Amino acid sequence: MKRIFFPFMMFFIMLATATSVRGEDGSRLWLRFKGSSQANVTGVANMAMEELKQNWQGGPVVLKRKKGMAKDSYTITTNGGKTIITACDDAGMLYGAYHLLRLQQMGKDVSNLNISESPAYSLRILNHWDNPNGTVERGFAGKSIFLNFDAERLKIYARANASIGINGTVLNNVNAKPEALASENLQKVKQIADLLRPYGIRVYLSVNFASPIKIGGLTTADPLDKDVVNWWNKKVNEIYKLVPDFGGFLVKANSEGEPGPCDFGRTHAEGANMLADVLRPHKGIVMWRAFVYNPQSNDRANQAAMEFMPLDGQFRDNVIIQIKNGPVDFQPREPYSPLFTSLKKTQMMVEFQITQEYLGAANHLVYLAPMWQEFFSYVQPGSLKAMAGVANIGDDTNWCGHHFAQSNWYAFGRLAWNPLLSSEVIADEWLRQTFNNENRFVRPMTKVMLESREAAVNYMMPLGIHHIFAGGHHYGPEPWYNPPGIRKDWTPPYYHKADAEGLGFDRTKKGSDNVSQYPEPLCSTLNDINTCPEIFLTWFHHVPWDHKMKSGRTFWDELCHKYQEGVDQTRQFLAIWDTMQPYVDEQRFNEVQRKLRIQTRDAIWWRDACLLYFQEFSKRPIPQDMEHPIHNLDEMMKYHINITMYENPEYGYDK
Amino acid sequence: MKRIFFPFMMFFIMLATATSVRGEDGSRLWLRFKGSSQANVTGVANMAMEELKQNWQGGPVVLKRKKGMAKDSYTITTNGGKTIITACDDAGMLYGAYHLLRLQQMGKDVSNLNISESPAYSLRILNHWDNPNGTVERGFAGKSIFLNFDAERLKIYARANASIGINGTVLNNVNAKPEALASENLQKVKQIADLLRPYGIRVYLSVNFASPIKIGGLTTADPLDKDVVNWWNKKVNEIYKLVPDFGGFLVKANSEGEPGPCDFGRTHAEGANMLADVLRPHKGIVMWRAFVYNPQSNDRANQAAMEFMPLDGQFRDNVIIQIKNGPVDFQPREPYSPLFTSLKKTQMMVEFQITQEYLGAANHLVYLAPMWQEFFSYVQPGSLKAMAGVANIGDDTNWCGHHFAQSNWYAFGRLAWNPLLSSEVIADEWLRQTFNNENRFVRPMTKVMLESREAAVNYMMPLGIHHIFAGGHHYGPEPWYNPPGIRKDWTPPYYHKADAEGLGFDRTKKGSDNVSQYPEPLCSTLNDINTCPEIFLTWFHHVPWDHKMKSGRTFWDELCHKYQEGVDQTRQFLAIWDTMQPYVDEQRFNEVQRKLRIQTRDAIWWRDACLLYFQEFSKRPIPQDMEHPIHNLDEMMKYHINITMYENPEYGYDK
Repeated sequence: MKRIFFPFMMFFIMLATATSVRGEDGSRLWLRFKGSSQANVTGVANMAMEELKQNWQGGPVVLKRKKGMAKDSYTITTNGGKTIITACDDAGMLYGAYHLLRLQQMGKDVSNLNISESPAYSLRILNHWDNPNGTVERGFAGKSIFLNFDAERLKIYARANASIGINGTVLNNVNAKPEALASENLQKVKQIADLLRPYGIRVYLSVNFASPIKIGGLTTADPLDKDVVNWWNKKVNEIYKLVPDFGGFLVKANSEGEPGPCDFGRTHAEGANMLADVLRPHKGIVMWRAFVYNPQSNDRANQAAMEFMPLDGQFRDNVIIQIKNGPVDFQPREPYSPLFTSLKKTQMMVEFQITQEYLGAANHLVYLAPMWQEFFSYVQPGSLKAMAGVANIGDDTNWCGHHFAQSNWYAFGRLAWNPLLSSEVIADEWLRQTFNNENRFVRPMTKVMLESREAAVNYMMPLGIHHIFAGGHHYGPEPWYNPPGIRKDWTPPYYHKADAEGLGFDRTKKGSDNVSQYPEPLCSTLNDINTCPEIFLTWFHHVPWDHKMKSGRTFWDELCHKYQEGVDQTRQFLAIWDTMQPYVDEQRFNEVQRKLRIQTRDAIWWRDACLLYFQEFSKRPIPQDMEHPIHNLDEMMKYHINITMYENPEYGYDK
Repeated sequence: MKRIFFPFMMFFIMLATATSVRGEDGSRLWLRFKGSSQANVTGVANMAMEELKQNWQGGPVVLKRKKGMAKDSYTITTNGGKTIITACDDAGMLYGAYHLLRLQQMGKDVSNLNISESPAYSLRILNHWDNPNGTVERGFAGKSIFLNFDAERLKIYARANASIGINGTVLNNVNAKPEALASENLQKVKQIADLLRPYGIRVYLSVNFASPIKIGGLTTADPLDKDVVNWWNKKVNEIYKLVPDFGGFLVKANSEGEPGPCDFGRTHAEGANMLADVLRPHKGIVMWRAFVYNPQSNDRANQAAMEFMPLDGQFRDNVIIQIKNGPVDFQPREPYSPLFTSLKKTQMMVEFQITQEYLGAANHLVYLAPMWQEFFSYVQPGSLKAMAGVANIGDDTNWCGHHFAQSNWYAFGRLAWNPLLSSEVIADEWLRQTFNNENRFVRPMTKVMLESREAAVNYMMPLGIHHIFAGGHHYGPEPWYNPPGIRKDWTPPYYHKADAEGLGFDRTKKGSDNVSQYPEPLCSTLNDINTCPEIFLTWFHHVPWDHKMKSGRTFWDELCHKYQEGVDQTRQFLAIWDTMQPYVDEQRFNEVQRKLRIQTRDAIWWRDACLLYFQEFSKRPIPQDMEHPIHNLDEMMKYHINITMYENPEYGYDK
């Protein structure tokens, strides 16, 4: 392996020089090591040694291999003035090295260490929704980093992932083009896999279930058809010749128009198992998405469980069902998907969305760790096999569009390693590494980050409201969106059901009975409007406008105040950031400030659009003790940002 | 005169029918009489009788003529169940009739009246800045009502004016085209004069001083040239043949590029007197504007006094110098023009601007009576001969663009009649007549109106800041506006003089010495930064950023808080208006609400633009206890609304 290290070292030296010239543009992520002369690192010669030699500024470090330790695990101990990193594999040693460097960067005492770390999940994987033409679905940070990829930049990507323990990456969109499996593309996959391998990262591909027809020339993709199985066998062999440690397939089947086994009269299990059997000899896995729903359903939230519960126990042991955290679709707040507590004999992984499809794209500062922690307060981490995150990464200089969006990539990796880490600890770590160690900076900004997701819920859709986003790009409010002929479950009125009586989706036993997918006593708690947590109120109930809330306010007044609270919170974030100028470099200060200003304007837009629209039903006044809308409903209703789902809007409402 | 009454009556009947169909669009102004069957009105048969017969709902009214009473004066008394209106002239009787109808409309007790009214000024005149092509300079309510005029609409205009005592109107822009005096145009002037005459309104024209050259074919317009005088004599004779009660000329000479006597080596007095001598045989007058300044001056505020003081005592007795209320140009707040207390032997009139050139055009609710009252707290009403107002009237259905802008037309007329009337009384009168008599509506909205001008000062230019408007159309903030090659006194930096030390124009004795144009002890009060009223602080002083204000705050912090206060005030106006829905018809409620929302957004725009721009100089933080800007300075600086000075912007900043 020595052969390839030389160019890497050249690159690190170039990087150190280049960044000092081009200033603080965010391109270095949280990997802002000060650099050092060659540190004293001995022992196993691997990537961990290279990283430490370049960046460690402390005393001698010894890298030791020790058989019998769990995969990816490591210990860091101090003995006789030496720091010893012990692991059974190169990946574990590398994780240990990054742990040590993190402590150094955060200014921690590293003179007497006794650390023992082991990941909660063996698979910690990013899902890139990148298309062959370089667009990224729900990508707000430029084009795909895998299109005409820049090897040096891909290595930074690999280091960043390894530094937080991410060990897998799905290179292409779950809405997969058959061409992903074309031989030319597989050559490129091999090149990428070769670049990522030294950092312990395996590559995976999303596959189109109809590939045997589309690129194989067969007349069917029936998973029980011999020719089809043969085709997949050949294809998988081709892949593993190029990429011996290829991870496996991610499949979105029979969902939102994608093909799948049901097209041929087969079940999801039959489809997934066929692929699993083909991959098994190579130790590959199948991640099969449970994100299915059909337009005829009277409650989309019921669909996944209804389709997958009958299949519980039928999946091979190298199939993992990948389930979105909530039953609908990555909303600012959803209850957990009841599949997680319903499936008993099926391997599951959670799919979080790091990219902010529904959370202000790359314009809003929304730190997502608290949202993911909320999920784990309902779903036992131990009940899952793996954790996947839909990446927020593109070819923007700062990788994620918003400097603070980097924190979500970081937090995802840290939580995939240890879902019990607190959001606060992760924010503190990220701020110190990415910006600086000043407590006067870190403490207030930690507070901002921790509050930011609740603020977004407040100004977008408080009290259980969901999916009232603009059609298409999902940026900004369009609770009225309902063009003729569209699938009803793609329109906000399907979800909010506002009428003269109240607001919300009746999912109680008297309604769609979605509550019954949850175990007791949670089911009963949710079913009763008086015990249902208010954060989920309109998710489960059609709430009368005058329903008395715990605050003593009516539901309508509480709704108004929640929106206002969101506006006030974003203003406060901006005000706090403005005082951070002494602690932040000019470029990042200005760029974040600009985004916070957009966020504050957007919060007002959300408040105005939602309150004025819902007021058409509630016929109740905006409470006097809060600000009143400054936009006009009719004008907001005429406004639609003219962008695709592959880009970040420059700003929000243009009035 | 009976001949012309018949069509009028037809019109009133049509109007009553039409308005009930077309609803409340504001076209009826404050003349919202309920109508009646023919009331019992006897005595002098004139326009007063017609109005009362149509609209009076009480007992018998007698119209009496009484010689010896002052022009335009009237009494209203009750005797033996009859209401008697007494005046020496038709105009006085008409004013009395409108007074009686106003009382009726406001629900006052009219059973025992003893009213005696006499106007403060014999000339109460509107200046229309209407151009021959129908555009209106600084007009925000559509095109000129005099272009292809609608006789029925002109009669509503006449009634509205007469109802508040306005008795003169200048039909065309002070930036006068020579064609105003062309014979074809004079035919049209005659038609308009004939329409307005029954309502006691005389017409006047703005004239271009170079008319003898431009339309007379002479080689000079020298006021001492015999051919020039002859030309004017002939032209004036032509006018009076068509309009025997023609009022006279308004002249803007040697100002902002307009021609004048100084072009021929003559003084303003020589120019004005020549025209006055020509008009004298016809009892016509000259209104000569003192709005002069030249680009070389180091303080535009000094200019008018410097040019006109040497001429004090040289003007004919049928010349009135028309002086803008402040020394610069209709800013949201200016000190009074020192000419008013300096000229001792010259007849003066004040020129107020009713149209909101610098006060948010037809988008902002700004009630101007408090501004005009502030002027009269410095300048004795008795020192003036007349009062002129630059009209805010156009062919928009609601006449003034903003429903509440009608109140400024109304208030101007009422103050021209009696400058001692309180702003509150006038607002109360206008609200009750224009909307309704509900105290729950009138009281809060009176409060809004009274506070609105101070709010505008707060969010636009508090603490004496002035003229930091967008170039050209003057809508929105451009404190940075300074394109290359422009006259410096047309750029905001000329006025605000922001630098690292502070903000403001040093007009003290150590600066431009403008303070010395004011009499003692005011001069000394203004000259000392510690005694100068804070509302004028940066008008007279270059105020250090850390100057301690009466609030205890630094000047910078106070400035920030003033801008925030303006934002908070507009929000409050909007919140109050929102509660007025039960008391206001749907159309006007929605239209005003829409404008208030624009105003609130604009207030935020103003705050952000000004604070972020001035912060570039102050280098001090926005105080933590207020909202922080949500817009970006660089983006605001790139933004310029692409409209002319003849139209109202649809809305403000589009981010």
